[in-house]
Amino acid sequence: MRTRIAPLAVACAAALLGSVGAVVAQSSEPIQPIVPPQQVNLGLVELGKKLYFDPRLSKSGFISCNSCHNLSMGGTDNIATSIGDKWQRGPINAPTVLNSSLNVAQFWDGRAADLKAQAGGPIANPGEMAFSHTLALGMLESIPAYVREFRQVFNKPKIDIEQVTAAIAEFEKTLVTPNSRFDQWLLGKKDAMTADEQAGYQLFKTSGCVACHNGPAVGGNSFQKMGIVQPYKATSPAEGRSAVTGKEIDRFSFKVPTLRNVELTYPYFHDGAVDTLPQAVDVMGRLQLGKTFTKEENARIVAFLKTLTGDQPSFMLPVLPPSGDTTPRPNPFK
Amino acid sequence: MRTRIAPLAVACAAALLGSVGAVVAQSSEPIQPIVPPQQVNLGLVELGKKLYFDPRLSKSGFISCNSCHNLSMGGTDNIATSIGDKWQRGPINAPTVLNSSLNVAQFWDGRAADLKAQAGGPIANPGEMAFSHTLALGMLESIPAYVREFRQVFNKPKIDIEQVTAAIAEFEKTLVTPNSRFDQWLLGKKDAMTADEQAGYQLFKTSGCVACHNGPAVGGNSFQKMGIVQPYKATSPAEGRSAVTGKEIDRFSFKVPTLRNVELTYPYFHDGAVDTLPQAVDVMGRLQLGKTFTKEENARIVAFLKTLTGDQPSFMLPVLPPSGDTTPRPNPFK
Repeated sequence: MRTRIAPLAVACAAALLGSVGAVVAQSSEPIQPIVPPQQVNLGLVELGKKLYFDPRLSKSGFISCNSCHNLSMGGTDNIATSIGDKWQRGPINAPTVLNSSLNVAQFWDGRAADLKAQAGGPIANPGEMAFSHTLALGMLESIPAYVREFRQVFNKPKIDIEQVTAAIAEFEKTLVTPNSRFDQWLLGKKDAMTADEQAGYQLFKTSGCVACHNGPAVGGNSFQKMGIVQPYKATSPAEGRSAVTGKEIDRFSFKVPTLRNVELTYPYFHDGAVDTLPQAVDVMGRLQLGKTFTKEENARIVAFLKTLTGDQPSFMLPVLPPSGDTTPRPNPFK
Repeated sequence: MRTRIAPLAVACAAALLGSVGAVVAQSSEPIQPIVPPQQVNLGLVELGKKLYFDPRLSKSGFISCNSCHNLSMGGTDNIATSIGDKWQRGPINAPTVLNSSLNVAQFWDGRAADLKAQAGGPIANPGEMAFSHTLALGMLESIPAYVREFRQVFNKPKIDIEQVTAAIAEFEKTLVTPNSRFDQWLLGKKDAMTADEQAGYQLFKTSGCVACHNGPAVGGNSFQKMGIVQPYKATSPAEGRSAVTGKEIDRFSFKVPTLRNVELTYPYFHDGAVDTLPQAVDVMGRLQLGKTFTKEENARIVAFLKTLTGDQPSFMLPVLPPSGDTTPRPNPFK
């Protein structure tokens, strides 16, 4: 028996060493690869996907989660500030939903602790979907196929807003983007990045960008003041974290945005005032680090940032259950 | 050799007879099954799918073809009249894009001969996407991945609007909905419809509905006056076919809408004034046929109509190529 165990033990030891080696290599980097979610409730995901795409959760019947967090477009709307009910101008740039499960909190000011707490916000926000939780639940309860699906997933007699937000949040948990060229490089594929891109990553680290943009999401895990060295002249009235904490010291402090898929999530900053990556890198260098990057440095950092684009969520467009004869009809012009 | 051919000949004759039998059975019905498109250019389809979902074809960067012809919702927006740029109220109900390749012409008044001619309309309509063909082409030409894909498909040096509309139309050709329970019944599965549904179909034929709602699309192949026996009090100013022909006799004549997937394409009629199928069947009976259906008759016809819901288009949500640094940015609030 000992002779039969020996090769296995050797193999295990090798695997262990290999694994330890990889962990060491990764932990020496301030950015870690995106890992797909490891515990997902598929029934919740499928229900949440439908809700995410259902404009009947808005007063107008026209705006869904996907309108402003468009999964064809990096989980954003690529507009400086979003369009709400009756074409209202939103106060802030719609952050990407991609990898948002990795955020320390949700919204730019972190006023929601997690995705579940976030999901109910826009539905009832008069400037966004302009509905109410009560009306949304009435709509869902009037649609037999939704009633059955909620019952299948939650096994409760009535649909409540907790179920709605739990389903949307579970779907959003799946919206991660692994397998970027940067992650492939982190995981050992050394030719996954060009020399310029690697030089850009070194600059990103040595210049101090990585002080805030770190972790698997390359951001999203802390709040920082916008305009540390030089003030930022925002086009938006948003005051940031102080709106949540009530503390003056948190004024103009925002959640550091993830840089995952940043190539797709333009325009940039909480007011969406900057259109391109070269401009964004320039502004960040000067305002946050007191550093003016040369044209070459800027180009290298931008080249690195573009290696952070991962596999986009890939799924069938959901087909929504039709309204019933008693489902209240939206009137977007009232 | 003769003995070896004989069984084949018998088999062929049997197949031929079977086929003739099926054709006879079908041709005796005024409605034929939906057949998936038989010649499709897949490169065009994939490009057209992206364009169909791309809100950058609108001035605001917010409205795509899919906004009003939502493929999660029966190819419509389920709103009486659509929402256009700056929340303008559209003049007419958005017809479903599903099976629209079977229509005799496009738009309610048939002003576009085919899908290709239709596709350019909303992009440049100031009340819908409010863009221009020139601006749309400039946007596309500024996005390297689009330039490559157009070149791959069309092999031409420049993108033009003919290419854009050809691609969208080719994608739309794929948006057919075969395999409804009614089609299964037509094709020989006699238990695909309940007795009530079959009775509804008989009523649909004997009452005269089928005079206009016939062919594979159960409509879409002729123009008819809305309000033949009794006038229809429309909530919309649309005058119908006369806007195209200039003839007084065509006033208030509209393309007969397809009844395929009619369960999903509420609200009904060119002004979207009627919310439910029972109401629509009642109005049609009285105004077009001078007939008041009993509650039971109405319910049976509605039950038949719900068997016309086919397999909805099933495809991966497309991922759009990101804008380049020189791509003009939309400003929806200007």
